[in-house]
Amino acid sequence: MSKIPFLLVILDGLGDHSYAELNNKTPLEAASQKNISKIKSFGAQGLMDPIAPGVPPSSDTAHLQILGYDLTTEYFGRGPIEAMGEGIELKEGEIAFRADFGTVRIVGDRAIVIDRRAGRIPTEETRQLVELLNKEARFVDSYEFKVVGLTEHRAAIIVRGEDLSYEVTDNDPHNINVPVLECQVREEAREKEKAKRLAEIMNKWTIRTMNILEKAELNEKRKKEGKLPANVVLFRGAGVMKKLPTFYEKHGLRAAGIAGGALYKGVAKAVGMDLIEVQGANGMPDTNIKGKFEAAKRALSNYDFVFLHLKATDYYSHKGDPVGKSEFISKFDDHLSIIEDKFKDIALMITGDHTTPCDRGLHSGEPVPVLISAPSIRRDDTKIFSEREASIGSLGRIRGSDVMKIVLDMIERTVEFGTRPSPRLITYMPSELKALKIS
Amino acid sequence: MSKIPFLLVILDGLGDHSYAELNNKTPLEAASQKNISKIKSFGAQGLMDPIAPGVPPSSDTAHLQILGYDLTTEYFGRGPIEAMGEGIELKEGEIAFRADFGTVRIVGDRAIVIDRRAGRIPTEETRQLVELLNKEARFVDSYEFKVVGLTEHRAAIIVRGEDLSYEVTDNDPHNINVPVLECQVREEAREKEKAKRLAEIMNKWTIRTMNILEKAELNEKRKKEGKLPANVVLFRGAGVMKKLPTFYEKHGLRAAGIAGGALYKGVAKAVGMDLIEVQGANGMPDTNIKGKFEAAKRALSNYDFVFLHLKATDYYSHKGDPVGKSEFISKFDDHLSIIEDKFKDIALMITGDHTTPCDRGLHSGEPVPVLISAPSIRRDDTKIFSEREASIGSLGRIRGSDVMKIVLDMIERTVEFGTRPSPRLITYMPSELKALKIS
Repeated sequence: MSKIPFLLVILDGLGDHSYAELNNKTPLEAASQKNISKIKSFGAQGLMDPIAPGVPPSSDTAHLQILGYDLTTEYFGRGPIEAMGEGIELKEGEIAFRADFGTVRIVGDRAIVIDRRAGRIPTEETRQLVELLNKEARFVDSYEFKVVGLTEHRAAIIVRGEDLSYEVTDNDPHNINVPVLECQVREEAREKEKAKRLAEIMNKWTIRTMNILEKAELNEKRKKEGKLPANVVLFRGAGVMKKLPTFYEKHGLRAAGIAGGALYKGVAKAVGMDLIEVQGANGMPDTNIKGKFEAAKRALSNYDFVFLHLKATDYYSHKGDPVGKSEFISKFDDHLSIIEDKFKDIALMITGDHTTPCDRGLHSGEPVPVLISAPSIRRDDTKIFSEREASIGSLGRIRGSDVMKIVLDMIERTVEFGTRPSPRLITYMPSELKALKIS
Repeated sequence: MSKIPFLLVILDGLGDHSYAELNNKTPLEAASQKNISKIKSFGAQGLMDPIAPGVPPSSDTAHLQILGYDLTTEYFGRGPIEAMGEGIELKEGEIAFRADFGTVRIVGDRAIVIDRRAGRIPTEETRQLVELLNKEARFVDSYEFKVVGLTEHRAAIIVRGEDLSYEVTDNDPHNINVPVLECQVREEAREKEKAKRLAEIMNKWTIRTMNILEKAELNEKRKKEGKLPANVVLFRGAGVMKKLPTFYEKHGLRAAGIAGGALYKGVAKAVGMDLIEVQGANGMPDTNIKGKFEAAKRALSNYDFVFLHLKATDYYSHKGDPVGKSEFISKFDDHLSIIEDKFKDIALMITGDHTTPCDRGLHSGEPVPVLISAPSIRRDDTKIFSEREASIGSLGRIRGSDVMKIVLDMIERTVEFGTRPSPRLITYMPSELKALKIS
């Protein structure tokens, strides 16, 4: 049995609806499928519910689920994953949030959000404000805060201290012309007392930092220049840093991740994949697709499993631009030619982490199409790779939690249920087995 | 409501891929379906994952799951099931392995397997060696061993003693040119200390019996004759004998099993079915299909549920012979005519216990096609019985654990959820109900 490398391509938010401007096709159906069709001719397709039917996944939970992690016991919030993707090193037990410097106007006893990016304040200015906060708002009670400036208005918040639980809500209302929210204990929190403590100190910190920022010299200057002041820190995605079992520990596969967006780099790091950095990979429409595919091609020679993430499909969905989304998929199809000589020797899955219909501009709970191919696989007769054809594909309707089992089966690394060791175990994982010493 | 008998036909390893030599059809698609199509015309099809998507089942676990047993609480290893199928009577708590006399060559401190069947040593010679071992290696510490000779190189090992757990791995590496393995505690073992004890005595026994066999007169003679010596006992499928609830106790159906292969006879016995012996039924391509169908026809008059197993499909899959597999399915289709006059009066399911693709030669985690028919059923318009058509059949994609519920429903023996008793319960199982005594 030969070793079959596996390539998982996630086109973020791939699933969609059909649109008049695409001749009643979905962006995927309307896209060029020159190379996709070569894969499809010796593969099969189906539909996948990343979490469960009708449940719209967040990108981080969808990815972890697809990669075989148990969201009930192995998910601890989005903040640390995103922070890791931004290159921040977190220590076990530290609480992290993603945050943005924004602009509020005080109306009565409320702070109304005017802009969630403080007029896209430049990176250097954000850094000045971060320094100010780290000096003047370093402690709330006995808890230590550290803000880390990222690009433009973006930042991360790290909170250190005893007896806190990350199970709290955002102060970020995720919209404008609405008030900054009170941070609260999540309804489903398991450690309510500890979460209450964190919520309390987060609310104190929000008010304190609003006061500091309001008076900051830099903001006075910005206002004079007619720019929006960065007078609030909006945080979201509370999470706690906990070490997950690595992808190798879980599945026995040496894995590499290739992504532009911080969250996806963070996912790869969180599961202990080697992160392959590609210059110009930025999670945007002008990302370096060529570089990413070339990196994937090289990685397929050195790893058992390669995870390649492309974000721009979801970007166009949130923008409500089905034509842009379809064109990006065509561009993706074009670049598939870079690995064409590998099509027959590798196992491959192309799918999305969720459906983001352009007419909704938000993640939906609809399933995503999945295309698979492998040297030994049950093929089907579906015509093109699409949401419609996938619903009659021979893969049927699967769940995110089935994916890694199917992946391991496609590359012939499964062990028969109830059998130890299995014939195939011998070939691929000799470390689990020991020869009997007879002397 | 009339009583509807049920016939479950398992074509072992039925699911497959498509092959050039079958005009890009699967063995099932390429087979003659003269009689199958009569069933299909008033039935429906779908896909079944015996365990779960992507999980390749062993034959014993797949069968137990399909028959409605819970693998987490009602499965205790393969050895006792196979031993029961070979006619060996086991007592509650006895540990059993399937075993083969094989040939090893000593290289350093390892025993390299040269042949897993000791040159297909004849039954009578195996019996001599069995007698020798039962005399000279009857005890390891305080534990008692009994070897039972079966046909040719085949045997079973029974171990008796206190505080043992069957959760150990095989010493059989399931391959040649690799060493005999150390018997180890399984990773998922629940009783690790007891399993460790069994592993230790199994390793001692392996080394002791290798020494005895190496010096055996019979082996000296075989070597002189240029034959391979039977100088090792390779064991696999550790299990413990535990009485399962019977099929009748579980489902209220009087059941009969018809099979040639020992494992499948063992499954029928393990769940307390009446085993109907058919002369010439041997689990091989030349099995007595006619006799098996005639027996099934008779049984359908005397039982509520008849389980008919045919092994040869899987035999051809493991051999990598899609043409042979397809021809055997045609032969099966031909013999279906024996029960043709019953087609409209019985409920029927034709399926496999797992997919064994000929191009892989091992069980895969892909679903198997399922064809069902019954006097009262939702029909579909699929064209032929096949993996591809099954993926768009009206049964959808089900799991092995759904099968018995669907079976009971097809024969109108279900109770409405939340309802006790159901109107139909009165008709078929009055023993559960008592008339109210009014005086």
